[in-house]
Amino acid sequence: MRILLAHGDGGALTHQLVTKLFRPAFADAALEAEGDSALLASQTGQMAVTTDSFVIDPLEFPGGDIGSLAVTGTVNDLAVSGAVPAYLTVGFIVEEGLELECLRRIVTSMAQTARAAGVRIVAGDTKVVEKGKGDGLFINTTGIGWVPESGRLGIGLIQPGDRVVINGPIAEHAVAVLSGRAGLQFAEPVQSDCAPLNRLIHAMLEQFRTIRFMRDPTRGGVATTLKEIALQTGFDIALEEALLPVRPVIRGALELLGLEPYYLANEGKVLIIVGPEEADRLVDFLRQQDQAMAGLIGQVTIGTGNLWLQTPFGGRRNLSLMAGAPLPRIC
Amino acid sequence: MRILLAHGDGGALTHQLVTKLFRPAFADAALEAEGDSALLASQTGQMAVTTDSFVIDPLEFPGGDIGSLAVTGTVNDLAVSGAVPAYLTVGFIVEEGLELECLRRIVTSMAQTARAAGVRIVAGDTKVVEKGKGDGLFINTTGIGWVPESGRLGIGLIQPGDRVVINGPIAEHAVAVLSGRAGLQFAEPVQSDCAPLNRLIHAMLEQFRTIRFMRDPTRGGVATTLKEIALQTGFDIALEEALLPVRPVIRGALELLGLEPYYLANEGKVLIIVGPEEADRLVDFLRQQDQAMAGLIGQVTIGTGNLWLQTPFGGRRNLSLMAGAPLPRIC
Repeated sequence: MRILLAHGDGGALTHQLVTKLFRPAFADAALEAEGDSALLASQTGQMAVTTDSFVIDPLEFPGGDIGSLAVTGTVNDLAVSGAVPAYLTVGFIVEEGLELECLRRIVTSMAQTARAAGVRIVAGDTKVVEKGKGDGLFINTTGIGWVPESGRLGIGLIQPGDRVVINGPIAEHAVAVLSGRAGLQFAEPVQSDCAPLNRLIHAMLEQFRTIRFMRDPTRGGVATTLKEIALQTGFDIALEEALLPVRPVIRGALELLGLEPYYLANEGKVLIIVGPEEADRLVDFLRQQDQAMAGLIGQVTIGTGNLWLQTPFGGRRNLSLMAGAPLPRIC
Repeated sequence: MRILLAHGDGGALTHQLVTKLFRPAFADAALEAEGDSALLASQTGQMAVTTDSFVIDPLEFPGGDIGSLAVTGTVNDLAVSGAVPAYLTVGFIVEEGLELECLRRIVTSMAQTARAAGVRIVAGDTKVVEKGKGDGLFINTTGIGWVPESGRLGIGLIQPGDRVVINGPIAEHAVAVLSGRAGLQFAEPVQSDCAPLNRLIHAMLEQFRTIRFMRDPTRGGVATTLKEIALQTGFDIALEEALLPVRPVIRGALELLGLEPYYLANEGKVLIIVGPEEADRLVDFLRQQDQAMAGLIGQVTIGTGNLWLQTPFGGRRNLSLMAGAPLPRIC
């Protein structure tokens, strides 16, 4: 069975989609209430809010799908802001003709990912566009979380001498999506690193007081994210190319394709800016938390907003924000 | 100038779009902070959360555009839940090739509508899909509001004998969009009723203690909204066809097209279920608030979840949820 335009008209078929598919899958009291808004418990203090739309092609790829990706991406944006994710909303824009079974798999995957991350899906919306006016499925997820310690993290806390730590190997998501898209075969299977990081981040924040700032290097990769930090702080960041964790199969694939791993998207990685006194211990801690390839990859220095890539041969390149889209629709 | 795929890759052009277009237009401290999440003041108590995606075709229509519509729709969903709207997030999915000037007009219109409604736009996201994989622009808006009096409204408060009041003429949005889409000409200009209702609703709630429940009759129109209320309460609702406010130009257009006004979308209307003792006074109040065609249109009775349309000739029809999409992509 396929999605019809009438599934999006707000009438009988929309009602059916909601009662037969979405509500059982997401199983939340706020959805059962069928109100125009979800009515939820609030907390005093600071709230974190983030929104993200997902247009990834293909909808399903090795290691995930647009549903797990949407939940993960939004949960991680809250977590790197120092917030404990609490609530998600979900907006579907479906292209007429999408297989209902495909939508069901994606919705199930969203629900599982949300449960694993400990967040509630509390409100939703569905629209349908004509065949040829969309591309299967687009998803918006908006997330709300509570900040237990306001001011604990901030880009303004970054100081020269701080270290840059990452929790594992880069470019895995981008290469997995590419392989799913083009039917490319690699020496060994490549999976997206797509995973909610909120529990790991919570544990780090509890143990390491000198963590200043975190950001998840998704679109644009590690280089674009660090360049943004350099621009916003006015400091330079030096990235050691030889220290960047890249698995051999990924490195091989990227050499063939002529792509740099540090401009490629990750969906289960976090860049952590931490004081030099705790950097090594933080790396050890991450490796004990099932993040075997975590490592120290760079350092903040006084400067003027540059991101330097220190090559293994003693040279250095000045990296910019990614320009041009080497891999469109990666998230 | 037109939108390129690279405007959505998270790199230099995305950065430019954010710093040159979105941030100046929306002018909010939360956006200036450039964090992965907006960090906002929260309130204790009950929070209302709602999400909506907009896929309307055409993007600009008499009386509004997809931007004013997106802000209005989400503000109204919060307001009818008894919440004071506080924050909005905005997710854009742009089709490659959209005129940058068109995006600028829509963003400006969103900012104006948000200011008029007194809500802040605090977080955003932009994705770009290839030409032919979208349709100009889709927008998701997610809204957060605070509920000053928890339990003040609820579908469970509705009782037999309650009256159904509406604040003005119906089907104006749907007919305006149709006229924009097909280039249809009517006897006089038709404009969408697209307008944020939060201030009007706030004023009503302050003065009328027997308001039990409200809902905005958008997709599916007055009939689908009331049928949902009938189904959820298990009561019947009797709607008086002769009392439905429909402007003559709209009635004429719909007769030609063979469409019923009560299944057509509104974007500035609210259905109010109110105790019989306050119904007439509520109508008077609305008429004084620049809602000249406000009126009492129906009544709740004991029953089994039916929506009855009482015709002017003494007959009655049992109305269902809208089935089939007479006008797709109306919001």
